[in-house]
Amino acid sequence: MRNRVFIERVQPELDNGRYFIKRVLGEKVHVSADVFSDGHDAIRASLMYKHEDDKEWTEVFMQDHINDYYTAHFRVEKRGFYHYKIEAWVDRLLNWYKGFKKKHAAGQDMAIELKIGVGLLQETAKDYKDANKIKTFLGVVEMLEKEGAQGAASQFVLTDEFEQMIIDFPMKRFLTTYDNELKVRVGRHKELFSTWYELFPRSTASEPGKHGTFKDVEKLLPRVAEMGFDVLYLPPIHPIGKVNRKGKNNAVTAQEGEPGSPWAIGSDEGGHKAIHSELGTMKDYKKLIKEANKLGIEIALDLAFQCAPDHPYIKEHPEWFIWRPDGTIMYAENPPKKYQDIVPLNFESDDWEALWEELKSVILFWVKAGVTIFRVDNPHTKPFRFWEWAIAETHKVNPDVIFLSEAFSRPKIMAGLAKAGFQQSYSYFTWRNTKSEMEEYLTELSKTTSREYFRPNFWPNTPDILPYELMGAGENQFIKRLLLAATLSSNYGMYGPAYEYMENTGNTNGKEEYFNSEKYETRYYDWDQRNKITDVMTKINQIRKDNAALQSTWNVNFTRTDNEQIISYIKTTEGLNNIIWCIINFDPNETQYGNVEVPRWVLDLEGREINLRMTDLLTGDVYYWKKDVNFVKLDPNVMPGHVFKVEVLTKNIAQG
Amino acid sequence: MRNRVFIERVQPELDNGRYFIKRVLGEKVHVSADVFSDGHDAIRASLMYKHEDDKEWTEVFMQDHINDYYTAHFRVEKRGFYHYKIEAWVDRLLNWYKGFKKKHAAGQDMAIELKIGVGLLQETAKDYKDANKIKTFLGVVEMLEKEGAQGAASQFVLTDEFEQMIIDFPMKRFLTTYDNELKVRVGRHKELFSTWYELFPRSTASEPGKHGTFKDVEKLLPRVAEMGFDVLYLPPIHPIGKVNRKGKNNAVTAQEGEPGSPWAIGSDEGGHKAIHSELGTMKDYKKLIKEANKLGIEIALDLAFQCAPDHPYIKEHPEWFIWRPDGTIMYAENPPKKYQDIVPLNFESDDWEALWEELKSVILFWVKAGVTIFRVDNPHTKPFRFWEWAIAETHKVNPDVIFLSEAFSRPKIMAGLAKAGFQQSYSYFTWRNTKSEMEEYLTELSKTTSREYFRPNFWPNTPDILPYELMGAGENQFIKRLLLAATLSSNYGMYGPAYEYMENTGNTNGKEEYFNSEKYETRYYDWDQRNKITDVMTKINQIRKDNAALQSTWNVNFTRTDNEQIISYIKTTEGLNNIIWCIINFDPNETQYGNVEVPRWVLDLEGREINLRMTDLLTGDVYYWKKDVNFVKLDPNVMPGHVFKVEVLTKNIAQG
Repeated sequence: MRNRVFIERVQPELDNGRYFIKRVLGEKVHVSADVFSDGHDAIRASLMYKHEDDKEWTEVFMQDHINDYYTAHFRVEKRGFYHYKIEAWVDRLLNWYKGFKKKHAAGQDMAIELKIGVGLLQETAKDYKDANKIKTFLGVVEMLEKEGAQGAASQFVLTDEFEQMIIDFPMKRFLTTYDNELKVRVGRHKELFSTWYELFPRSTASEPGKHGTFKDVEKLLPRVAEMGFDVLYLPPIHPIGKVNRKGKNNAVTAQEGEPGSPWAIGSDEGGHKAIHSELGTMKDYKKLIKEANKLGIEIALDLAFQCAPDHPYIKEHPEWFIWRPDGTIMYAENPPKKYQDIVPLNFESDDWEALWEELKSVILFWVKAGVTIFRVDNPHTKPFRFWEWAIAETHKVNPDVIFLSEAFSRPKIMAGLAKAGFQQSYSYFTWRNTKSEMEEYLTELSKTTSREYFRPNFWPNTPDILPYELMGAGENQFIKRLLLAATLSSNYGMYGPAYEYMENTGNTNGKEEYFNSEKYETRYYDWDQRNKITDVMTKINQIRKDNAALQSTWNVNFTRTDNEQIISYIKTTEGLNNIIWCIINFDPNETQYGNVEVPRWVLDLEGREINLRMTDLLTGDVYYWKKDVNFVKLDPNVMPGHVFKVEVLTKNIAQG
Repeated sequence: MRNRVFIERVQPELDNGRYFIKRVLGEKVHVSADVFSDGHDAIRASLMYKHEDDKEWTEVFMQDHINDYYTAHFRVEKRGFYHYKIEAWVDRLLNWYKGFKKKHAAGQDMAIELKIGVGLLQETAKDYKDANKIKTFLGVVEMLEKEGAQGAASQFVLTDEFEQMIIDFPMKRFLTTYDNELKVRVGRHKELFSTWYELFPRSTASEPGKHGTFKDVEKLLPRVAEMGFDVLYLPPIHPIGKVNRKGKNNAVTAQEGEPGSPWAIGSDEGGHKAIHSELGTMKDYKKLIKEANKLGIEIALDLAFQCAPDHPYIKEHPEWFIWRPDGTIMYAENPPKKYQDIVPLNFESDDWEALWEELKSVILFWVKAGVTIFRVDNPHTKPFRFWEWAIAETHKVNPDVIFLSEAFSRPKIMAGLAKAGFQQSYSYFTWRNTKSEMEEYLTELSKTTSREYFRPNFWPNTPDILPYELMGAGENQFIKRLLLAATLSSNYGMYGPAYEYMENTGNTNGKEEYFNSEKYETRYYDWDQRNKITDVMTKINQIRKDNAALQSTWNVNFTRTDNEQIISYIKTTEGLNNIIWCIINFDPNETQYGNVEVPRWVLDLEGREINLRMTDLLTGDVYYWKKDVNFVKLDPNVMPGHVFKVEVLTKNIAQG
């Protein structure tokens, strides 16, 4: 009870330490806290961290700011979990040192003060084990103790060298420790930086009317790689239910020969561990994975834990489903609507443990087959505690496995899934259509606690969603949304062919759905087609690879323009080694003009001249900006935005 | 692991449940949380609370709002501690009921649905013990089960009566409980509503040059009571140190006969349990307490845990102090300054437990003598953990004891002390001088988490502080600050005689101190004097007693005016039984004119006519306000503000 210091409001800390935060290799963890004590004594605080494999904690002295606010950071260099905590104490040695300087400045007699200091130094020395440290320390003590050395001793105490020693050798007594099981999980780089292309494998055949196969997909890999994508995501590849199969445009009954929705999983041909025979075999799938990997592409599997009415589980495990008093099974429903092609799993089943184990075995089955990325369908309709467990269990087998949460739901639901462990999450980007909406949303994602656990993945479209913004839209609008997604978020993706070939016809029901949705039919695409979208896609993906500034979502800085249609944001790497400045016109129809301010604080130009070489990486055009405010003109018919690489040409002279 | 609901962001919760929140008898505790689950099932949440003496929890169903936000409240009716927690669950019965209504509306066949409902009702009935409840319940089940009753049964399910039953009989399965040791301490009314007058007992003699005594103070009690104060606070009454005693105006050495500062406690005549002999005896002090109580006044003791150099502790317990290598004691210091009349206690002493016990014994000594209120001097220079313990220990003996924290320090320090248990705290009111500063500060105090633990006490002056605002100030300014303190905060006080008689001369050192401070000398006051300040004090204190709206600090609503010098705020009791509307002119020199808006949302006048009788309780003037915006004129030479009692004359007719 002699520890006098309090540590409060520690950040980051999720729900009283209930959840870990997330980083990828090389990222920093910035920790802050309120640290205070009674009285006026000098207090110090240290951030302590260690990797789960380490025995010793590493210490970082925290910096104090105004109003008892302390900060420090550490960088994560190893995969796995790090622990962190805070220690704080009243530092008698530092307290003495501060008083010494003031008293000396006031011309007081320092003899007794020196004696007190020697005593404190001797006491402190006992705490240290490092022989060199102790030697330095005791040398100083001896020097201060020398008779007649009072003047010299006082002078020595006032040196920077001595001050550094006081800082390096804190005198810790009556420590207060804040240790709320704070953890950070360190994943691979791709958790933060990935570029997704989604296509239906059945629509990859080389001629119309044929069902595509994994072999067809394999042929497309060079195209996908050339466009710069590193994740190829295929909707479910399992046998599609035959009972209550849906037809074209979600018709209640399929016509003979209609393929059905791949999300209606399971039939007499097998369930979640089987492959839809028309796509090929397990061997083909494994080969696809292998060939893709050679080109730097990972194949993402769709994990949709729901069953068609003829899924084998229903007979094998009737206890995993809900049965009505008339002996019929309960379909998925949103009363009064029933979805007869889908049966939900009952996670409240008395046999829930076996159900969890089975679903885990599904995940591990595919991990064993080589799958390293899962796009999880509707995870918010299964218990979050299940995901938390399943993801952790999977990571025991392979910590490289990435789970993307496909939950377009309410904010707390989406946050809850991310906290449960999903490394990436679908986001509201799809519905952020104005400059102010976009700035507000990115600020929420990147400048609040959200960034500690929720990594957004920006999708301008999905097979489920043709947003109103893209209905009837032309090329300019498609390019604009592409540029925004690719530069604002380090994770982005698209339902590829529909985007490339600008499908823009909405469903007749008025919802944000595609007309003639590919979910219910097989398409034929002429994959040799290229257009301006394809070109910009290819270009922007290359730009993302070449510029580390675009490989994070947290480093965005919005800057001022005088036109509400023109958004401007700068992303930089540490030390400003790489600077990307995007300026994009929200208006797909008209040329917009405006002035853009150079944010001196972002570019370390405070008090210095402005001299920037601005190279537009989309066009190759070069501009020189030398003023605080610079004029831009954006004709959406030419290109809806600039993606500038910025070189600071300002001479590196310190200025008065 | 089948509990699917999550409960997050519970409010109020202080530092992960580390501290209790505070209420007085009759106040409400408003609890909120984010509550959500996977899927689309109906979920419910309950706030559970119980007094520490109760065995059973009381349940309040929480209301759901937008975005998974839930709220409920309970009222504290007993002294001591209440516990509270939240339970939430997926309610299958409610889920079924909601689906039933939708399916029925869609004209579906309800036979199976009724059977499902009966099953759920039967299962739920098993959870209840209350015979009457079960009877009602089973009656309904029987009715629904009756053959041929399908039409009638469906109709019954759609009645309000049935809905109420579904609400009253929740079907709890797989509960999630949020139980983070959340507690509320319920104190007596005076913790929230008190009116303090401070005087130096030595300055109460009936003629100049004499040392005042407790008997003299006793004679003043009727005056203090007549002015409407219910706490009379006396600076320390213990023997004053003779060694290194301070002289007039804080002179380093006292002249012969100078009395010294009462905060330099202890001499050869005794320490913290002794009484300064010139004031009288313990018997006199007890009599003073008794006589005061008869008039509704409590005598507050100053608790200043520090020692004069001749305090008996120093010889008896040298281990409680810090000694320098030359054998001298360490005085209080703020380097390079030394305060030779004060020696601090060393709470890091190896003998800290004995020190804590001794200090506790000091508190309990005075509690036994009849003291029920302590004004604690500089609590922030003693460990917060000590206070947390000492206050809790005191409350075991007498839960009525109130501790006021005299810490004018940084925000987190002041908050830390309040969280440690102080029921009242000095505040920054003293330095909030403009309308916007005052609105901002009161909003922080009354509309943020602060209100759960920090009860401000507003003092316009103290013996230590003559704020710049009052230096050289005239009567108008003194009345203005008095009205603000007395109406904004339900706890307020003043260093009485200096305020009443408008001492306004600042110290020559330029600090916010009194010239010829009473801390270092004995004064003579002609207590028969009354002036306009005395009159307004008397009046406003009576108004506070008569109007419950002024007996809380949390109920303030600032309303709009069009003049930055005119502040307007309304305080109301629940149900608008008492409404006080203060409109005050910040300008002490000039008459200010302005328009004041009637806030319809505060006065429950939305969509209704405005018809208010406004009685100025300071002057007796009556106005009728019938418009949204009303004109006011405030001449500070007449009265710097209105304190209106508002009567709503609007007829109580519901309007379209």
